[in-house]
Amino acid sequence: MKYGKVTKEIIEQLVNILGEKNVFSDEEKMESYSHDETPIEQYQSMPEVVITPTSAQQISEVMKLANRYLIPVTPRGAGSGLSGGAIPLFGGILLSVEKMNKVIEIDYENMMIVVEPGLVTNEINGLVAEKGLFFAGYPMSLETCYVGGNIAENAGGGKAVKYGVTGQYIVGMEIVSPIGEIIELGGKIIKDVTGYDLKRLIVGSEGTLGIVTKAIIKLSPLPKFRTNLLVLFEDVDSAISTVPKIMSEGGIVPTSIEFMDKLSVHTACNYLNEHLPYQKAGSMLLLEVDGTKQSQVDEDAEVIGELCLENGAIEVYVADNYTTQERVWSVRRNIAEAFKVYSPHQSLEDIVVPISSITKLMPMIEKIAAKYDIKMPSYGHAGDGNLHTTLVKNPDSTMEEWYDIEEKALLELYEAVKVLGGKISGEHGIGAKRKKYMDDLVGPGEMAMMRTIKKALDPNNIMNPGKIFDLK
Amino acid sequence: MKYGKVTKEIIEQLVNILGEKNVFSDEEKMESYSHDETPIEQYQSMPEVVITPTSAQQISEVMKLANRYLIPVTPRGAGSGLSGGAIPLFGGILLSVEKMNKVIEIDYENMMIVVEPGLVTNEINGLVAEKGLFFAGYPMSLETCYVGGNIAENAGGGKAVKYGVTGQYIVGMEIVSPIGEIIELGGKIIKDVTGYDLKRLIVGSEGTLGIVTKAIIKLSPLPKFRTNLLVLFEDVDSAISTVPKIMSEGGIVPTSIEFMDKLSVHTACNYLNEHLPYQKAGSMLLLEVDGTKQSQVDEDAEVIGELCLENGAIEVYVADNYTTQERVWSVRRNIAEAFKVYSPHQSLEDIVVPISSITKLMPMIEKIAAKYDIKMPSYGHAGDGNLHTTLVKNPDSTMEEWYDIEEKALLELYEAVKVLGGKISGEHGIGAKRKKYMDDLVGPGEMAMMRTIKKALDPNNIMNPGKIFDLK
Repeated sequence: MKYGKVTKEIIEQLVNILGEKNVFSDEEKMESYSHDETPIEQYQSMPEVVITPTSAQQISEVMKLANRYLIPVTPRGAGSGLSGGAIPLFGGILLSVEKMNKVIEIDYENMMIVVEPGLVTNEINGLVAEKGLFFAGYPMSLETCYVGGNIAENAGGGKAVKYGVTGQYIVGMEIVSPIGEIIELGGKIIKDVTGYDLKRLIVGSEGTLGIVTKAIIKLSPLPKFRTNLLVLFEDVDSAISTVPKIMSEGGIVPTSIEFMDKLSVHTACNYLNEHLPYQKAGSMLLLEVDGTKQSQVDEDAEVIGELCLENGAIEVYVADNYTTQERVWSVRRNIAEAFKVYSPHQSLEDIVVPISSITKLMPMIEKIAAKYDIKMPSYGHAGDGNLHTTLVKNPDSTMEEWYDIEEKALLELYEAVKVLGGKISGEHGIGAKRKKYMDDLVGPGEMAMMRTIKKALDPNNIMNPGKIFDLK
Repeated sequence: MKYGKVTKEIIEQLVNILGEKNVFSDEEKMESYSHDETPIEQYQSMPEVVITPTSAQQISEVMKLANRYLIPVTPRGAGSGLSGGAIPLFGGILLSVEKMNKVIEIDYENMMIVVEPGLVTNEINGLVAEKGLFFAGYPMSLETCYVGGNIAENAGGGKAVKYGVTGQYIVGMEIVSPIGEIIELGGKIIKDVTGYDLKRLIVGSEGTLGIVTKAIIKLSPLPKFRTNLLVLFEDVDSAISTVPKIMSEGGIVPTSIEFMDKLSVHTACNYLNEHLPYQKAGSMLLLEVDGTKQSQVDEDAEVIGELCLENGAIEVYVADNYTTQERVWSVRRNIAEAFKVYSPHQSLEDIVVPISSITKLMPMIEKIAAKYDIKMPSYGHAGDGNLHTTLVKNPDSTMEEWYDIEEKALLELYEAVKVLGGKISGEHGIGAKRKKYMDDLVGPGEMAMMRTIKKALDPNNIMNPGKIFDLK
């Protein structure tokens, strides 16, 4: 498809719709809108114009204009994405929701909050904590990311084992469709089978099927107490095989079950000059339990600790105060950063496999790392099989070699994941970065179904084109 | 659209695909496939042929055949639906999944079960209970309904406050698309953002976008202890305003928060000759809490009891043993049956509104009941705003008058629900019964989006046509 160019006339029309201050096209100002948090040297593309609308009505008019002139429109949240979903691959209009950042309503009677897409996710939690509530679906980047981006990616975080991910909490939304219609979906309601669940189609569609202009988010009771367990295992097998037992035998759904392989823990501890008792361990689980009573949290932690020991844990450390909790979580959070000392050139993945297959995946990853002489630490959300396996460049290789290795090693990693019944992205999305692998790794029937829906809802293919898949 | 007729030649081709014993067309045998549990005198339509396939491959071939000859195909589970979703409105092929009732695999390591769509839902719970697990998304009809029907309707039940509904637990599925492709979606994975979430589009689409031939269901830890509270309130307001406080102030998410208005409790108690202390009460809440420890369940019950009393409850009764629990739940379960003594002609609804709007809805319902001189008891899942308001015919009216009143009163009820930001179905679906109201009550943009998707995925409109909406 040949797209139209953003001419002076089109910019004038955009100014008519949005006002002077919400339209700009000077290169310097636009630069920061040309990439997200995927490596800029690989994933960057300049928009022809950036707009910062303030209402769904304006966005509707922009979409109608864009359809008339066949101008691609790329929606953007905080730009904290990790798959290049907000990069304007074909230039055109970059639509930033940064000015649509209002809290429209807090409805305590229904335990819901209504917000605009440009709101920083963590602001919700700040506002409703005093009433004993929180937004339970938030991702780990909650201090910078926007709600709109969370919805577009169906973002998940460290607490997904117990609380699930973003989509579970989005009970209603207003969107502007690719053809410029303003559509309300769902509402302040929890159950709804009144026709197709279009909300859930929009959630995770990476801005390719519409722009979310308002979200109704269900709030949950904020747990009052929590405790953390750091558990050392001799190997990956004993750690991973313990995970389902905690839930079935122990009857406990922990808030988090994080996994770190030896390489990850070792590197992060060295980086932080932290002396966790990790030396003997072949792998570690970091578990969190939360609840409304201290006694219940303590009991849960005890049951989990015992189960871990029965299943071959070497040691169980309980971090029941803020300082020790921060210490162990800091190790987990600093793994990616720690590897930057080794090399800043990385490919941060978020593959997802059946939990029990993590044990089979680990030696496959080791083989790939050895074959290409790169480091591939694995850590992440064991409780839902979602691992941040990371490819880290060998500092001795050239950039050219690295790009070549990255592409090949990624394909081998994804193929291993597919063999195990997994998927290539559990929370970061496909975006621009992973779309080239989709046709090989996702079934043709499923790909055809996605393309059919995209073509039907966005007949001119102007809504964030080139993301997830290319049309055929 | 003009559909083709099921000729002798087509039946021969079906026999070729499915074998003699899986194809029949004698009227008597087909009769029970002509309706579901909506009133037979209003919602019945005979199929031209009934087939009972045993594999996805057979269904795929049938769909290809049906597309060639433009024959409508209506999938059917247990026929326990309450919206006419499985009625073959245009004749054609009735596809019953009754013979696809196998448990394919129980995977304890991943806490998942893989089943065919014709399995009776409760069999899952029977199989996995010994390992401390259960399927938490089941509806109240679990002893008769099929898993396939649960998915088609995104069925929910009495435990949805804590556990959510069917769709939350369907992590993977195999479907046959309207054009006959066999497509795998998801897998034994919990998080997945690898492209659009097509599973969630299929869930609740009432068999109009494909036939589920296999489901991968996530299991949850089976709570070991539970207790119930029956709480009497003077009026609806004090009962309903207590609901969010239990979650936010109490920090507790109960398993169930059921609501019964005075008329419902009164009628059910009389019917069962049960002497609950309901006489003084203007409304009642029936709450269940569950957990892994008796002490925790007791504490939760105490906190809830105290909160209810602080919020104007007249009395709180704790039903902490099986006998008393059965007594109070029996009242709740027998409301519909109890009203059949008054009149067997009813319209069982499952409207859903914001929880706090239940208080505004009740007087609106009373007005409608008075206007048409019918009874309209309301009871159901207060914890998610989902009420089984039921229209019960006045025994003094003729059937003709009743049908007229039913249509008008339903429209007024649905309009009241819309005004309050609610939806017309929370768990039973739209099917054949409610589709005539959709265009008036759902926004034009949302309806257009649904129709666009349906047309794109089922170009000949042969997959359960005439359900949810008619095409335009």
